[in-house]
Amino acid sequence: MQRTLSVQLSTRTDRTVRIAGWVHRRRLLKSVAFLVVRDATGLAQVVVTDPAVRATVEALTEETVVEVTGTVTANASAPAGVELTGPVVRPLGPNAVPSPFDLFRPELTATLPTQLDHAPLALRHPRRSAALRVSAAAVAGFRATLDARGFTEIHTPKIVGSATESGANVFALDYFGRPAYLAQSPQFYKQLMVGALERVYEVGPVFRAEPHDTARHLAQYTSLDAELGFVTDHRDVMAVLRDTLAGLLGTVVDRAGPALRTLGVTVPGVPAEIPAVSFPEALGIAGAPPDEPDLAPAHERALGEWARREHGSEFVYVTGYPMAKRPFYTHPDPARPGYSNGFDLLFRGVELVTGGQRLHRHADYLAALAARGEPVGPYADYLAAFRHGLPPHGGFAIGLERLVARLTGASNVREVTAFPRDLHRLTP
Amino acid sequence: MQRTLSVQLSTRTDRTVRIAGWVHRRRLLKSVAFLVVRDATGLAQVVVTDPAVRATVEALTEETVVEVTGTVTANASAPAGVELTGPVVRPLGPNAVPSPFDLFRPELTATLPTQLDHAPLALRHPRRSAALRVSAAAVAGFRATLDARGFTEIHTPKIVGSATESGANVFALDYFGRPAYLAQSPQFYKQLMVGALERVYEVGPVFRAEPHDTARHLAQYTSLDAELGFVTDHRDVMAVLRDTLAGLLGTVVDRAGPALRTLGVTVPGVPAEIPAVSFPEALGIAGAPPDEPDLAPAHERALGEWARREHGSEFVYVTGYPMAKRPFYTHPDPARPGYSNGFDLLFRGVELVTGGQRLHRHADYLAALAARGEPVGPYADYLAAFRHGLPPHGGFAIGLERLVARLTGASNVREVTAFPRDLHRLTP
Repeated sequence: MQRTLSVQLSTRTDRTVRIAGWVHRRRLLKSVAFLVVRDATGLAQVVVTDPAVRATVEALTEETVVEVTGTVTANASAPAGVELTGPVVRPLGPNAVPSPFDLFRPELTATLPTQLDHAPLALRHPRRSAALRVSAAAVAGFRATLDARGFTEIHTPKIVGSATESGANVFALDYFGRPAYLAQSPQFYKQLMVGALERVYEVGPVFRAEPHDTARHLAQYTSLDAELGFVTDHRDVMAVLRDTLAGLLGTVVDRAGPALRTLGVTVPGVPAEIPAVSFPEALGIAGAPPDEPDLAPAHERALGEWARREHGSEFVYVTGYPMAKRPFYTHPDPARPGYSNGFDLLFRGVELVTGGQRLHRHADYLAALAARGEPVGPYADYLAAFRHGLPPHGGFAIGLERLVARLTGASNVREVTAFPRDLHRLTP
Repeated sequence: MQRTLSVQLSTRTDRTVRIAGWVHRRRLLKSVAFLVVRDATGLAQVVVTDPAVRATVEALTEETVVEVTGTVTANASAPAGVELTGPVVRPLGPNAVPSPFDLFRPELTATLPTQLDHAPLALRHPRRSAALRVSAAAVAGFRATLDARGFTEIHTPKIVGSATESGANVFALDYFGRPAYLAQSPQFYKQLMVGALERVYEVGPVFRAEPHDTARHLAQYTSLDAELGFVTDHRDVMAVLRDTLAGLLGTVVDRAGPALRTLGVTVPGVPAEIPAVSFPEALGIAGAPPDEPDLAPAHERALGEWARREHGSEFVYVTGYPMAKRPFYTHPDPARPGYSNGFDLLFRGVELVTGGQRLHRHADYLAALAARGEPVGPYADYLAAFRHGLPPHGGFAIGLERLVARLTGASNVREVTAFPRDLHRLTP
């Protein structure tokens, strides 16, 4: 008999079906026993009255894998309005060793470190697996939006020959006897690929040897990177990012509806035009002194509140950050060279996306490095390609775990990461 | 004026348009000059007769980024039947330094090492970029097929605490002062995630410190991994793989048509049922002695020819390899314990996919390791989860670069990889 998923049961009333899943919970009452079976789509209640079947159920432990054949019976007081009656219960493996924490309660009560130590078990909790489903839908929406706009997906090296971008926080490895490093971003590769494909994106791991033990930092995270050529300036990039976010969140709504309901999450809309303020305007709105060189977290929160109050938007762009606070490859504002054609996107008062127009002339790169007193050496391979003609271009990067944490209200990115890596954690 | 792509020109006859791209080639005849502009969608021919514009074109170098405004004019002898006349030509950056090899010829004549040394340039060649487009379409088809079958995309750690699978070919790195390794596959993680999501897939980099310098091996490649629970045996996995291949190749046809035409490639069909032979049958078909422990490349070629001749199929499954030749986590055939529920899929006589049913009981893992004289230690974290109930499951892994190379007729996987990593190559 074909397996029926728990989500399908309500359409199979009065039929005999076979379900399979994990023993989520048992309730052994005097005259009847209830077995709740969990599968990837939800929970199914099995009602046991036959003494022999009850003996089988009594011998089971939580998390044991079972299959149950029975009749789908309407019962308005059962979850989803149906339950299985007259069941035959068969274990599909040995009895499971009990979990160190209860998986059947609405919330996991174990501390986060305990959950992470036992990640393969904790991820079985409906709230933890729901966050992973939201994450998968978000990535699917990112790709679909960019596919529809002429972008091509690329895969770039994660092992690189020189430590670029932010030299300190880099993992070193032995590459056939030579020193090498884990890539901190696909930044340079995606720019070079604009020369071949014009519009590219990559979804992949990036590595940061972050010495900080915070709720926002991971040593490996998933970066959603995009880069496009033939832009006028950063505003073309912001328009694509706006559409990408709208498509991403729309796909979360379309594909991850049950997961959103499990988490009690409502997905915000993205305005047709996301409000944008210049860096000096942002300082003014946040009540910061006009000579502040960067936005502090409190300023970002104030901007988030302002955007919601004044524009009904959970999102706000800040444009034209001072060049000194942006990476050397950022294109300056031609009208105000101390300020950049770079932007941040704040989501609910926290920076979620960084992007901007990049330099595209080889001579500009050399000048930018010289102005910062940085050597050309580590960038030489990368910069060589800029002598061969690259169009004006720009792009952005979204940290997937931060996005999903912010969207689902998780206070720590580790809650929405299957097997996080950080300063202290290398397993499981 | 909005930019028009070269592929759109044939629908814009007699209109004034703006195109942009790279100087692909110039031909300076006595009375007329031709400028061929390349963009992401193809080539556009610009006809120059005005002396001032001609002077601009004469000063340009190949690969310089330009924009051209002109009138789309029908000309049956021009590529795509149209050309731009009465043009204004404007460089979008400084003159490009010429490429060390011609990009305008139908084939790149530079040696592969030279192409790879100058990858950002070589990838601009229409044949090289076409292979990347085929690759992107293949991945999109892989995901779409599995999404439609209830799989969830996951992202797993690429930095792991112990060297498992094949201990020798592993990259070691310094993880905050502790030894760590780059993951050789997501094998164990995808199995554990079956416990949370039942059906999962991952598209991501895997790392092999391959000491071999061959046309098939890379130190980093993109692995298309899938794993599914509640299978009866490996045949359920083979059925999903068959559908995945059909969907993958169908998407290549749908999305990468122009790239396939550039490469002159016809995508093979996937039979509704891929022919499958057992390992002993495979030895017989290949004319190998019945006591051979594995299939040699010549045997695989013979099987490929047999499948085409007897079944009209470019694909053939070989099932039931001897357990001694499969990883320790492979599930044996219950009826013949010396043989496995593992399979290979051969594509045109070369192994393309490996898969099978896995062990799902903790005790079976301990016994399998003991039988091979392997310590439990490196696998301890991974095996712990099997005590908590995992259903019968299995999966497969497809090497993206090998698939695309085989599909496009490339003789070396490096031809279809943007920035390959191998024993000798760490840049660009």
